[in-house]
Amino acid sequence: MQITLGIINVSEAKKLILESCITAKIENVSLLEATGSVLAEKINSVVNTPPFDQAAMDGYAFDFDSWDRKSVLTVSGEVQAGNFSSATVKSFETVRIFTGAPLPTGTDTVVMQEKIIVVGKTICIQDNLLVKGSNVRREGSQTIKGELVMQKGQLLTPAAISFLASIGVDKLNVYSKPSVSIIVTGDELMPPGRILSNGQIYESNSFGLTAALNQINISPVSIDIVNDEEAEIIKTITSRLSTDILILTGGVSVGNYDLVPSSLKQCGVVQIFHKVKQKPGKPLYFGKINQTLVFALPGNPAAVLTCFYEYVLPAISRFTQKQYFRRLQMPLASDFRKKPGLTFFLKGKTKYHEVIILNNQESYMMNSFAMADCILELEEDKELYKKGDLVNVSMIV
Amino acid sequence: MQITLGIINVSEAKKLILESCITAKIENVSLLEATGSVLAEKINSVVNTPPFDQAAMDGYAFDFDSWDRKSVLTVSGEVQAGNFSSATVKSFETVRIFTGAPLPTGTDTVVMQEKIIVVGKTICIQDNLLVKGSNVRREGSQTIKGELVMQKGQLLTPAAISFLASIGVDKLNVYSKPSVSIIVTGDELMPPGRILSNGQIYESNSFGLTAALNQINISPVSIDIVNDEEAEIIKTITSRLSTDILILTGGVSVGNYDLVPSSLKQCGVVQIFHKVKQKPGKPLYFGKINQTLVFALPGNPAAVLTCFYEYVLPAISRFTQKQYFRRLQMPLASDFRKKPGLTFFLKGKTKYHEVIILNNQESYMMNSFAMADCILELEEDKELYKKGDLVNVSMIV
Repeated sequence: MQITLGIINVSEAKKLILESCITAKIENVSLLEATGSVLAEKINSVVNTPPFDQAAMDGYAFDFDSWDRKSVLTVSGEVQAGNFSSATVKSFETVRIFTGAPLPTGTDTVVMQEKIIVVGKTICIQDNLLVKGSNVRREGSQTIKGELVMQKGQLLTPAAISFLASIGVDKLNVYSKPSVSIIVTGDELMPPGRILSNGQIYESNSFGLTAALNQINISPVSIDIVNDEEAEIIKTITSRLSTDILILTGGVSVGNYDLVPSSLKQCGVVQIFHKVKQKPGKPLYFGKINQTLVFALPGNPAAVLTCFYEYVLPAISRFTQKQYFRRLQMPLASDFRKKPGLTFFLKGKTKYHEVIILNNQESYMMNSFAMADCILELEEDKELYKKGDLVNVSMIV
Repeated sequence: MQITLGIINVSEAKKLILESCITAKIENVSLLEATGSVLAEKINSVVNTPPFDQAAMDGYAFDFDSWDRKSVLTVSGEVQAGNFSSATVKSFETVRIFTGAPLPTGTDTVVMQEKIIVVGKTICIQDNLLVKGSNVRREGSQTIKGELVMQKGQLLTPAAISFLASIGVDKLNVYSKPSVSIIVTGDELMPPGRILSNGQIYESNSFGLTAALNQINISPVSIDIVNDEEAEIIKTITSRLSTDILILTGGVSVGNYDLVPSSLKQCGVVQIFHKVKQKPGKPLYFGKINQTLVFALPGNPAAVLTCFYEYVLPAISRFTQKQYFRRLQMPLASDFRKKPGLTFFLKGKTKYHEVIILNNQESYMMNSFAMADCILELEEDKELYKKGDLVNVSMIV
């Protein structure tokens, strides 16, 4: 395992994370649970669909070739969807048939009920366009038994779920979501809804992270809010190392009370990098222990969510094999000057095929992030961006 | 209430549905439950954020104006995040301070710990760029108590949730999701996973509809699979009329066993329209009873999901005040000829800024729908589309 101690750039950091991801795990789930997941196996149809020649319309079924194109046909029975007639229909006979019903033996064509005249117990067909096989869905016209019908890697949309149900699939293998634990550190944190004392602020990072996980249909398995006390932090980390992904916030800089990196070390977590040339989120830490990926994010709320979308989400994608949000290039709506030497991740809003950089980009400010629909990335080395310059945009809604 | 008996076109049908939607309902939920919902009230901040002048860096806090730009400062104490010092810091004194900690009385500036030299119990500042207020987040610099910080109608993204937590909000009013019931009719239906008997097919519509509802974070309150027996259908409908939206599938054409419209009538549902000039889904029925919207969809699986996305989803949007998928215009990837007189909704796939019409568009076929990422709409009156013609595209993923 590569261990990087100095500050690294964004692309190195992203590469090290992806290299640390384990092989995606597979689980067998019921069809409905699979909605939105990615298929982890090939699916071959175990049935012909339709499973029998089926009326596509309400009408009358008969044998086309034995009919002389003019005689009336005698109605000898009726079959509706879900029923089955074992009698064989003879020449110049017909059966009343309803949409979805199986064609009785001896029939191959259905004339629509709007195209006949009933004369006593016979019908007279008045349909010049009728050909052999009209208004019949042939057995196996959608899928043939044994045929490969879905590839590994397919996104299981509602339509895919409906299709799999229609060929009888009730359980299937999909790529598992990772289990995720959240540990928020900080002596100054008070839950929303309470009254703040001197020096306290509202704890918002567990809410932002949980909401971001919920947005991609993951519920964190645990949320711990702990004080800046090493023993407490170590105890909490230790109890959460069975999860696939552990996210910590706060205490990750180099101050006397930044106890997270040292606590992780004492828990046996191997640091892979600490500090990235970026704003916000420069003190970002990433490590690993056994199969657990550990992301320790700086405590400022905008840094937390930016690092979640830019670093944690790609790791989650490796588990689920799913791309969550669109990434695209868009022209900037106005000039922007930045310090060179750091990649800037900025809260943005797309509008009329342009991307606007919002105000209040400081890492402790969330009021503009609340209005953002994307994060845009400005390159480390670049200093001046002009209106119309193409920038990388990661959608977050 | 307008009651339309004849076949109508797509835009009339959509208009009648929207006119039948009730005023959106509002519910008070906890902050995390609100993720992905739309805010139904204005939010004014009840606190200043930050709630106090706060160190933005680890360093030393002091009073800038009383300092002579050269003398050492005597370290008189320490304050970390979550703590509070009630002592006043005097001229030429300083306190060790950590990120997030409140500035003690008598200080207004923080010098970073990297920009000082410690000499015994004093520090020597070496920072030519330091100005009054450096490295301090001023009280109220993000929000001022009483300030309007979020408008009604705002989508509650994870960042919005994090922001609201940071200003202490723990409960809020959002537009409610509708309650939805599903009733699937048909004698021929067998659950996936079982063995088919003669004349049976697998029941897939409850799976497709439930997955489509889950995709927008709605769980149906009930799913009933009923036979084509009027008494059973009527009993089931009656028991589900307390939901906001009732979706039925199958039995909606004009055949002898199409019992849904007559059953709905007997339950007191007022038909608003029955039949739309479209393919698939021509027999679509829409009605209303009290506050309940009733959609009776044709039973073919592709018609069911197409009608869900085109008709039921806009009604759900009226409840939640949320737009779920992007609707855009894209050029067709190849020529296409259709029958005039019906609007065609086709399963499509977007690729390189074009939209491809997939094969197998028949309403009983789901294999192509399973691969689709959009539904494209071809106009009723038009017959020939050329490659490059712009068409309306509704994304479904």
